[in-house]
Amino acid sequence: MARTLRVGMIGYRFMGRAHSNAWRQAPKFFPLKAHVEMHTICGRNAAGVQAARAQLGWQNASTDWREVIESPLIDIVDINTPNDSHCEIAVAAAQNGKHVLCEKPLALSVKQAQAMFNAAQKSKVVHMVCHNYRRIPAIALAKKLITEGALGQIYHYHARYAQDWIVDPDFPLNWRLQKNVSGSGAHGDINTHIIDLGRYLVGEFKQVCGLMHTFITERPLTETPGKAQALVAKTPRKTGKVNVDDTSLFIGCFENGAIANLEATRFALGRKNHIDLEINGSKGSLAFDFEDMNRLKFFDNTNLADRQGFRDILVTQPNGIQPYVGQWWPPGHILGYEHTFVHTVADFVNACIDRKPIHPTFEDGLKNQRVLEAVEESAKSGKWVKV
Amino acid sequence: MARTLRVGMIGYRFMGRAHSNAWRQAPKFFPLKAHVEMHTICGRNAAGVQAARAQLGWQNASTDWREVIESPLIDIVDINTPNDSHCEIAVAAAQNGKHVLCEKPLALSVKQAQAMFNAAQKSKVVHMVCHNYRRIPAIALAKKLITEGALGQIYHYHARYAQDWIVDPDFPLNWRLQKNVSGSGAHGDINTHIIDLGRYLVGEFKQVCGLMHTFITERPLTETPGKAQALVAKTPRKTGKVNVDDTSLFIGCFENGAIANLEATRFALGRKNHIDLEINGSKGSLAFDFEDMNRLKFFDNTNLADRQGFRDILVTQPNGIQPYVGQWWPPGHILGYEHTFVHTVADFVNACIDRKPIHPTFEDGLKNQRVLEAVEESAKSGKWVKV
Amino acid sequence: MARTLRVGMIGYRFMGRAHSNAWRQAPKFFPLKAHVEMHTICGRNAAGVQAARAQLGWQNASTDWREVIESPLIDIVDINTPNDSHCEIAVAAAQNGKHVLCEKPLALSVKQAQAMFNAAQKSKVVHMVCHNYRRIPAIALAKKLITEGALGQIYHYHARYAQDWIVDPDFPLNWRLQKNVSGSGAHGDINTHIIDLGRYLVGEFKQVCGLMHTFITERPLTETPGKAQALVAKTPRKTGKVNVDDTSLFIGCFENGAIANLEATRFALGRKNHIDLEINGSKGSLAFDFEDMNRLKFFDNTNLADRQGFRDILVTQPNGIQPYVGQWWPPGHILGYEHTFVHTVADFVNACIDRKPIHPTFEDGLKNQRVLEAVEESAKSGKWVKV
Amino acid sequence: MARTLRVGMIGYRFMGRAHSNAWRQAPKFFPLKAHVEMHTICGRNAAGVQAARAQLGWQNASTDWREVIESPLIDIVDINTPNDSHCEIAVAAAQNGKHVLCEKPLALSVKQAQAMFNAAQKSKVVHMVCHNYRRIPAIALAKKLITEGALGQIYHYHARYAQDWIVDPDFPLNWRLQKNVSGSGAHGDINTHIIDLGRYLVGEFKQVCGLMHTFITERPLTETPGKAQALVAKTPRKTGKVNVDDTSLFIGCFENGAIANLEATRFALGRKNHIDLEINGSKGSLAFDFEDMNRLKFFDNTNLADRQGFRDILVTQPNGIQPYVGQWWPPGHILGYEHTFVHTVADFVNACIDRKPIHPTFEDGLKNQRVLEAVEESAKSGKWVKV
Repeated sequence: MARTLRVGMIGYRFMGRAHSNAWRQAPKFFPLKAHVEMHTICGRNAAGVQAARAQLGWQNASTDWREVIESPLIDIVDINTPNDSHCEIAVAAAQNGKHVLCEKPLALSVKQAQAMFNAAQKSKVVHMVCHNYRRIPAIALAKKLITEGALGQIYHYHARYAQDWIVDPDFPLNWRLQKNVSGSGAHGDINTHIIDLGRYLVGEFKQVCGLMHTFITERPLTETPGKAQALVAKTPRKTGKVNVDDTSLFIGCFENGAIANLEATRFALGRKNHIDLEINGSKGSLAFDFEDMNRLKFFDNTNLADRQGFRDILVTQPNGIQPYVGQWWPPGHILGYEHTFVHTVADFVNACIDRKPIHPTFEDGLKNQRVLEAVEESAKSGKWVKV
Repeated sequence: MARTLRVGMIGYRFMGRAHSNAWRQAPKFFPLKAHVEMHTICGRNAAGVQAARAQLGWQNASTDWREVIESPLIDIVDINTPNDSHCEIAVAAAQNGKHVLCEKPLALSVKQAQAMFNAAQKSKVVHMVCHNYRRIPAIALAKKLITEGALGQIYHYHARYAQDWIVDPDFPLNWRLQKNVSGSGAHGDINTHIIDLGRYLVGEFKQVCGLMHTFITERPLTETPGKAQALVAKTPRKTGKVNVDDTSLFIGCFENGAIANLEATRFALGRKNHIDLEINGSKGSLAFDFEDMNRLKFFDNTNLADRQGFRDILVTQPNGIQPYVGQWWPPGHILGYEHTFVHTVADFVNACIDRKPIHPTFEDGLKNQRVLEAVEESAKSGKWVKV
Repeated sequence: MARTLRVGMIGYRFMGRAHSNAWRQAPKFFPLKAHVEMHTICGRNAAGVQAARAQLGWQNASTDWREVIESPLIDIVDINTPNDSHCEIAVAAAQNGKHVLCEKPLALSVKQAQAMFNAAQKSKVVHMVCHNYRRIPAIALAKKLITEGALGQIYHYHARYAQDWIVDPDFPLNWRLQKNVSGSGAHGDINTHIIDLGRYLVGEFKQVCGLMHTFITERPLTETPGKAQALVAKTPRKTGKVNVDDTSLFIGCFENGAIANLEATRFALGRKNHIDLEINGSKGSLAFDFEDMNRLKFFDNTNLADRQGFRDILVTQPNGIQPYVGQWWPPGHILGYEHTFVHTVADFVNACIDRKPIHPTFEDGLKNQRVLEAVEESAKSGKWVKV
Repeated sequence: MARTLRVGMIGYRFMGRAHSNAWRQAPKFFPLKAHVEMHTICGRNAAGVQAARAQLGWQNASTDWREVIESPLIDIVDINTPNDSHCEIAVAAAQNGKHVLCEKPLALSVKQAQAMFNAAQKSKVVHMVCHNYRRIPAIALAKKLITEGALGQIYHYHARYAQDWIVDPDFPLNWRLQKNVSGSGAHGDINTHIIDLGRYLVGEFKQVCGLMHTFITERPLTETPGKAQALVAKTPRKTGKVNVDDTSLFIGCFENGAIANLEATRFALGRKNHIDLEINGSKGSLAFDFEDMNRLKFFDNTNLADRQGFRDILVTQPNGIQPYVGQWWPPGHILGYEHTFVHTVADFVNACIDRKPIHPTFEDGLKNQRVLEAVEESAKSGKWVKV
């Protein structure tokens, strides 16, 4: 472990906290090929970023992302800003020879995503988009089972990502509800996750037909954009137009003939962060619920006929048996949301040392963006669209 | 209970067995307004129908359905034949002044369904299509909760009906896989059920965009059509073209603005008769799984914030509290599939005496058919279709 | 099917309704070796028994059980009376050469149970105690798996039978709460069921140490004993002493070394008719919940290490594959509480023709009673008691 | 946050890793009243403790626990050693004026536990036994609901802690299976947890009657005691006597009249770290499963009768609404096993600054030990024992 990798992280809110934790925890639990230094945290608000530096465990703070990506001390740039700045930062970072880890969705458009992928390839840096759900141990196990052929030919990919955090009409118009900053609503925020899982577990999408809808089209303004959960007074106040989707759903098919049905919504009361995912093949089926993320359900049609049933696999067995989870605790001791980031960062660090591609790459992010854009186009035109 | 109603039942296979049981059981458990006589069972095969008569408890057997529907002794005609004969029998029965209970889907086409509804209306008979799932106690409770406003404005109707009985490529080409007899595959057989539940619980469909697909297009022929589960020799044998859908799915919206996502498939290994249904509104959500049909999940957003969660309602409380179920056993003693037919028949019998419409009427069947046909048209044209 | 068996049923309330249904349904769904005639129903109240006769489908009614058991027309006596009369009726019926099916618990005491078993043996009649849960398809499948060795050596039998119907202190003092009629409370009513399942699935109990407790010791009197669910006025009223247990639990061991933990209670709010049962062996485990009685959970330790988990077996596969259930409906179409009685009656009828013992016999009832009595003795003495 | 607290941690294996993580994470996620320094890690093996120091993030390493507890630099001593050394270390630490956090079970005997509590009281240090499950958010919420009266009078406490890690007869005789080091088997290791939860949620135990059993009495020896999971060659090898329990169960009652049923086992195949816990009261019930530790099931009998059911509360709402969990991630983003230690450490640190008792104190550990010992005595004598 001769090498040291110094990280500069841009953005320090929800994702910044999750990534900081991952940079801090990965070396404690995983055998990394490099020593990691949490070098600089960066954000626009000087006081905010200083507080975050102290709280999250970074050595330095900066208010200028260009300074960070240009610094010769920095090896890795980790981008956690709102979606509209991903492209500019990532391209510049890559051009400066930094390895880049970027939050999802990769960009606001296919054009941006393509630029990012091009820049990363040209600079020969290691690039990764943070679709952290690939490294939920249950999903990694799903991938293993599918790769081994346990499902046979895949017929169905059915996924629903459901949340409920904006059902309240008084929830304010934060940046995630403004198209110029976020690109889209549920679509780019959470549909992108189940699109990525579909690409990872099943294959490439071929064509799609989608529907995007906004249930509540006017919301109170927040004085301070970015304070997502801010409460505002109940007195007369200004409102603004919601110009992103509250729900986005589409049907379609994969190149390999499997049928796709994906739905993302922020209007499903009681579903906090629910992914209901099912894959059916000619030999077996898999089911997964993100709110019970330590479990994978597996139906094996080769079992004796009198005792077939979905197996409820508690994915907590030692490494070598089940992926990632054995680095943590003994069997039956479950993991949480944040661990997926630790696994992502651990794999990314090792890839940076090996200088090998690590999935999901910016190319994955680009392909994801193509699906996102195809669905948007379809929702607008009312027609099927080839991806 | 002065009156007696005499029933003539056409068709004696799977549905004939289920309906016979309902005619037998309804008077034992429900306070009917008429005495019911299981008068005549009818089928094309003389030996078969005689055996069925004895086994299922009918007084007489016939091989000629016209004889049955014309008999002055018969008050009610109950149609359980394959879908291609529903229309002819039902129209004739109505014209002969018989009350008609008809299996779903009502017909092969909107045109047929319209003719059936017209005939029933003209004759002023009581007419009902056997969408028995409306009378699952949990579904009846769902209807009650929605009617009372417990869900508020409805945003989402998400339903998947999944089975696996033809995943095996050696499963033979029975009547349900032949378009001229069945009209369609998973679409008219099971999508029709969740379309009906959507219309019952949410409202009328406005427009749809669908996809229908056949995974296995060639199957061994069965020598004896109708023997659905027959095993055939593994030696070289004749095969035939499957010309119905293995899966049918569609997205769309309801008149009231709710978003729809429905999927029916016979290719989901491990799902035997699974309906995964979720309805999300502005005040609460409901979820239901047909394989656990004694339960309804209810999320009530008006609960105290620290103790909100989907309630797992075991729908077995006494009548007056929860619908239907209290006629059977004490709380906690669950019901099965066949009970839904008993509830249907009980309500139908009383409606025949009252001469009042009883849902789902042939008009419901007709509207269902319009949705089915709109989805088929959309799947063919690749365009959105207004219902 | 040359023979006809004529049934005389004593008692017509809850169990009488369930048994009547079984006698009615068994011939419709199972290939019986005899024709069954529902000959005479018998109860003390003339008007009540006449109404029950008409409602439940019996040919004749009687108010004198001696008349029934002495009638040369009767082949089978089915006893559904309160527990204090089981012994007298069963002994007399056996002495008159009738086959006897008797509700559980077999008797009020070991002494009574022994007398019943002796009488049945001496008369060489077929005798069966109605522990109907043995014929829940999931339990029958559990028995099959255990017999085949799928669990290996059994270590644990852990079962809890929980209800909540008397948590309300205003629930009246019905016959089930009066020791002279019922013998005991939760103990003989529901603990007996999980004792029987333990004996069926694991083996004979060796020694036990128990605890029985009454939470609410005084309750309003019902004017009409037997009207279990009667509502009584809220005005000042007479109360009486509850002299049976509200809960009964014990730990112990089986002859074969397995450890037992059984608990029965009527004071578990939200549990309507809940049996939470788990069996752990050296090769696998089984779990079962009576409120989801169509499912059996099976953990198979011989599965590949990366994909082990409790399998959720929906026990609805065709006969020959899974027991009983295939006589009813296709896979995925679930059964309910009442079906267990149909299965019991069907097996009993065939055994009467074959004149062969059919489990659970009166000897099983006697052994069950020995466990019940050992627990009662232990609860009284505060000591371990050998069964 | 003027103060700094310096921690010395004794023992660095499983619990040492979990505690190190807690010391590292607590300041990042919780507003602590002191700055925490991970000052010294201590263990008997010099190489081992040095490696652990580097991996787990401690400043110094020591092989002499006396040095640590005597060091004027150390404020807090955190004891994670095998059970046989808890007493000596804790007493010495307290006598040296250190605040003490000690792993469970507190001691090998009531006598030891009493000595520890006495020493801590005399020195007026803050003392806590690490029953970390009290700070599972779902358990903390259960405590809140019970305290608010949502359950009314409690009737039943039923808990089963089931694991399967020694079902394999080849699993070696590690320290947890040797009485002189561990004190007992499943009893002190995991029964102690559900005893603590019973005391926390329900009240003090009054009397108990127990059973302890060893299924496999001879096991291969491990060369290197302490290497719990070591694999040993399959060739002829030495074996040793297992002198602790594989399972420990007891029935009993609480001072307040509630009935107790507790079972701990390491022989339940498929159960990795399963706690199945249910509490029933006069107004409601709670259920909890440790393998789904982010959920609490709550039955509220005051709900409308037609919609009662166990609520599946995903305990991930913001702080102020639900305890602890809001310090981490947004709703629906679940936590894992290790977080319970972070919550424990955070509360302990603040208590050290406030110099106030923090539950569970050594007195709780002592009372727990009294229950453990009463069960052991009962299992030996076959008699009921007062706690």
